[in-house]
Amino acid sequence: MPSDLSAVLAHIDAQRDDYVARLSDYLSHPSISAENVGIAEVAGLLADMLRDLGLETSVLPTAGHPMIVARHDAAPGKPTVLLYGHYDVQPADPVDLWTSPPFTPEVRDGRLYARGVADNKGQHIAQILAVEAHLKVRGELPCNLVFLLEGEEEIGSPNLAGFVAENRDLLRADLAVTADGPLHPSGKPTLVFGSRGVVSFELRVRHARRDVHSGNYGGVVPNPLWTLVHLLGTMKNAAGEITIEGLHDGIVPPTAEERAAVAALPLDRDAYMRDLGLTRLDAPQDIPFFDRLSFRPTLTINGLHGGYGGPGSKTVLPCEAFAKCDIRLVPGQEPDDVMAKVAAHVARHAPEVELVGEKMGMKPSRTPMSSPFAAPIREALTRGFGEAPLLYPISFGSLPGYVFTDVLGIPNFVTPYANADSANHAPDENMTLDCFHGGIRTGAALLQALGEME
Amino acid sequence: MPSDLSAVLAHIDAQRDDYVARLSDYLSHPSISAENVGIAEVAGLLADMLRDLGLETSVLPTAGHPMIVARHDAAPGKPTVLLYGHYDVQPADPVDLWTSPPFTPEVRDGRLYARGVADNKGQHIAQILAVEAHLKVRGELPCNLVFLLEGEEEIGSPNLAGFVAENRDLLRADLAVTADGPLHPSGKPTLVFGSRGVVSFELRVRHARRDVHSGNYGGVVPNPLWTLVHLLGTMKNAAGEITIEGLHDGIVPPTAEERAAVAALPLDRDAYMRDLGLTRLDAPQDIPFFDRLSFRPTLTINGLHGGYGGPGSKTVLPCEAFAKCDIRLVPGQEPDDVMAKVAAHVARHAPEVELVGEKMGMKPSRTPMSSPFAAPIREALTRGFGEAPLLYPISFGSLPGYVFTDVLGIPNFVTPYANADSANHAPDENMTLDCFHGGIRTGAALLQALGEME
Repeated sequence: MPSDLSAVLAHIDAQRDDYVARLSDYLSHPSISAENVGIAEVAGLLADMLRDLGLETSVLPTAGHPMIVARHDAAPGKPTVLLYGHYDVQPADPVDLWTSPPFTPEVRDGRLYARGVADNKGQHIAQILAVEAHLKVRGELPCNLVFLLEGEEEIGSPNLAGFVAENRDLLRADLAVTADGPLHPSGKPTLVFGSRGVVSFELRVRHARRDVHSGNYGGVVPNPLWTLVHLLGTMKNAAGEITIEGLHDGIVPPTAEERAAVAALPLDRDAYMRDLGLTRLDAPQDIPFFDRLSFRPTLTINGLHGGYGGPGSKTVLPCEAFAKCDIRLVPGQEPDDVMAKVAAHVARHAPEVELVGEKMGMKPSRTPMSSPFAAPIREALTRGFGEAPLLYPISFGSLPGYVFTDVLGIPNFVTPYANADSANHAPDENMTLDCFHGGIRTGAALLQALGEME
Repeated sequence: MPSDLSAVLAHIDAQRDDYVARLSDYLSHPSISAENVGIAEVAGLLADMLRDLGLETSVLPTAGHPMIVARHDAAPGKPTVLLYGHYDVQPADPVDLWTSPPFTPEVRDGRLYARGVADNKGQHIAQILAVEAHLKVRGELPCNLVFLLEGEEEIGSPNLAGFVAENRDLLRADLAVTADGPLHPSGKPTLVFGSRGVVSFELRVRHARRDVHSGNYGGVVPNPLWTLVHLLGTMKNAAGEITIEGLHDGIVPPTAEERAAVAALPLDRDAYMRDLGLTRLDAPQDIPFFDRLSFRPTLTINGLHGGYGGPGSKTVLPCEAFAKCDIRLVPGQEPDDVMAKVAAHVARHAPEVELVGEKMGMKPSRTPMSSPFAAPIREALTRGFGEAPLLYPISFGSLPGYVFTDVLGIPNFVTPYANADSANHAPDENMTLDCFHGGIRTGAALLQALGEME
C-alpha cells in the first residue's frame, strides 16, 4: 500500500471517537420506512452530508421514499464505483425489550446500540466517512464514485429496480459495492460475489362449499389437503430433488473456482447441528454443505394449513387448504420463467389448485470471481479488517444485486462491515466499534485500491 | 298384523297429545353430561318410569355417569330385545340462538322444540311408551326386553364397552335395537345394520429447534412439512388408494344382498353436488356412490398445520408440523390392528415422525342383512311409519354398535325415529310430532313382531 493510503488510515484512526459521535448523531434520527417516520428528515441530513463533501447530490422522488444519488467524477481515467446502502431502518418494536432506547444511541462494552446502527446506517456512513478522510488528507479521491442510498430496503425495495433502470446514466459505474450484512461469526471479513434469487407463491384449493363430517362424507367428498399433498409430492420427491418440469433449465453451473471457494469455507458441522438441534441435514444426503446453500435451487414450503388444528381429534373433512412456498433461484434462473414453469406444472398435475404468485420475485445475481475488481476489493478488506476475507461465490439469502449485475450490467460485490451478532431487526441492534472502524478503513482502502488498478 | 297390535296402536293414537305432554315434562329436566348438570336427577326419573312399568330396574354406577338397566323376562320362549338409548344431552349453547328456551319445551308448527328431544330423549321415551301401551292394553309384553340407557353418549361413551363386557348376564339378549339418528330426508324410515368404525391419530414432526430463514438455511435444514407431505404420499396415492401396508387385510367383502341394498338407495346426485358445491367426487372416480360410504375404509386428513399462515409471504423454513387423520374402518378391520399397521408404516417410511394415537378407536360392526330379526324389524318400521324402510347395510359414520355385535355377540339394528332436520347438537333442536308418534308405534310393532317370530 502506498503511503498516501497510510496517511488516510492514520487520519481515520485518529478520528475514531469523533466518528462514533457522528454516527450516534445520525442514529438519533429515526427513519422507519414501514411507518413512514422521519424519512424526509434523514434523507435531507444525508444529502447535506454528501453535498458537504462536494459531491453532486440529488434527492430523487420515487413512487415511495426518495433515492439519494451523489456523484464524484473528478478522477478521469479511473474506475467509478457505485456504493449502495439504505438509510431506512426497521421499526423498533418491541421497544420495551431494548436495554437503552432505540433512538438514543449508547455505547456499552465496545458496542454502539441503536436501531439501524448495523442495518444499515453504520455501514453506509462508514463509506461516507472514508470519502471524507480521503478528501481531508489528500484533497482528492483516488477513483470516481456514485452513492446510491435508498429509503425502502426494509420494505422490500419496491422501487429500486425501476429507478436504476430509468437512471442508468446518472448511475453509470464500473462496479457496485454494497456494505451490508455481517462478517463471518469468527470475525473474519467476507466478500460475496452473487446471490440466490427467490420467488414466492401460494397454492390454494377448495373442494366442497363447507367442512363436512369425515364419516358421513368420507370417500365421496374430495379433501383439499390430499390434493395439496399429492400436488406437492409431484413438485419435490422424497430424495430431495425438485421435480417441477424444466425448473433446472438454464442453470449456470458453478466454476471450478467457485466450487473451490465454498469448499474452503470454514464449518464446524457438529456445532451447527447442535445449535439447531438437527440429527441430519436435508435430503439429498451426499451434497457438500455449502454447495447446498450456494449452487442449488430450493423449494421450501413456508407454511401449509387446512382443517382442524386444535387439541385432540375432530372427525372433519375440511373444505379448503393452502400452502405458501418459496423457491430460491441460482444464476441462470429467471423469476418469471420459473413461475411460468410452476404454473404449467400445477395446471398439468392439479388444475383445481389455484396458483397465486407474488407480484415480483427477486432475480439471482452472479458476479464472476474472476472479475478484475475482485483482487483490489480483497486487498481493501484485508487492509481494513486486518485479515483476508472469506470468499462467497453467492449469498445464500436473496439480495437485490441483480439491479447492478443485470440492470446496469456491472459486477456487484458485497462487503459487510457489521459484526455477526448485530441483532438486525431485533431489540438491542448493535455494531461493535471495531467493526465500524474497520468498515471506514476498508472504505478508504477500497477507493485507493480501485484507483491504483492498471 | 294381529288384532291385539291394532288395539295397542289404537291406544297409542288416542294418547298422542298426552305422550307429547309427558315427553315435554321429561325434556324440561336438563341432563348435560359434558357439564355434569342434572344427570342424577334424570337417571332417577327414568328409573322410576321403568319401575312403574314393573321392569326390574337398576341404576348402576360407572367411572362416569350411571347406566340404567331394566329387564322384563316374563315371556318365556320369546326373544329378548336389548333397547339402547342415552338420557344425556348436548349442552344448549349458544342459548341465545334458540327461539324458545332449550329446557322449556314448546310446540310450534307440528314440532316439539327442546334440547335432547331428538337426541335422544324423544326416541328412547318412545320405546318406553310403547312398552307401557302393550302393558296397559294387553297386560303383558309379547317378548322379553332389556333397556340399556347410558348417560355419557354425548361425551363419547367412555364406559359403555367396559360396562357391557362386565354385565353380559344382566344384558343377555338375542338382538339389540337402537332408536337414534334421523330418518331419510325424504321422510322414509331407515333400517341400519352395521356401522363403519374409526381410529384417529396425529403425525408430528420437528426437525430444527427453531424456525429458520429459507434463504440462509434452505437446502441444509430439513423441512417438517416436506417430511409430512412425503410420508402422507406413501399412505394414500393420488388415485385415491390407501397404500398403508396391510390395511385392507381381513376386510369382509360385502354380500350380494348388501351391494344390492346400497345400489337401491335413493340419490339425487346433481342436488348433492350442487348443495356441496362439488365439481367431482373423490378419487377413485369409478366407485358407485354408496359403495364409497359403505364398503371402503377411508383415510382422511382432518387437519395439517405447520409454518406461516398469515397474509402475504414469509420466507421461513418451519421447524415443526403436524397432521391429524382418521381412518374409517369397515367390517373385518380392528382398530388396534389398523393402528399397529399405521405405526409400522410410519416407522418404515419416516421414523422421525411421531405417531400419537388416540387411546381408543371405535370398532366397526356388522349385522348380516340375512339375520332372522331383519324381517320383523322391517315390518315394524313399515307399520310404525306407514312406509317400508330404506335399508343401509352399514352406517357411514361410526356408532358403538360393536358393543352389541362384538362384545355381546348379538345382531344390532338401528331404527331412527327423528326427522332428518332435527338439528341435533344445534340451537332449535326439534322432533316432529309425527316422528315421535311414529316412533312409539314402531316400538309397539317391534315388540309384537319379535314376539310372533317362529
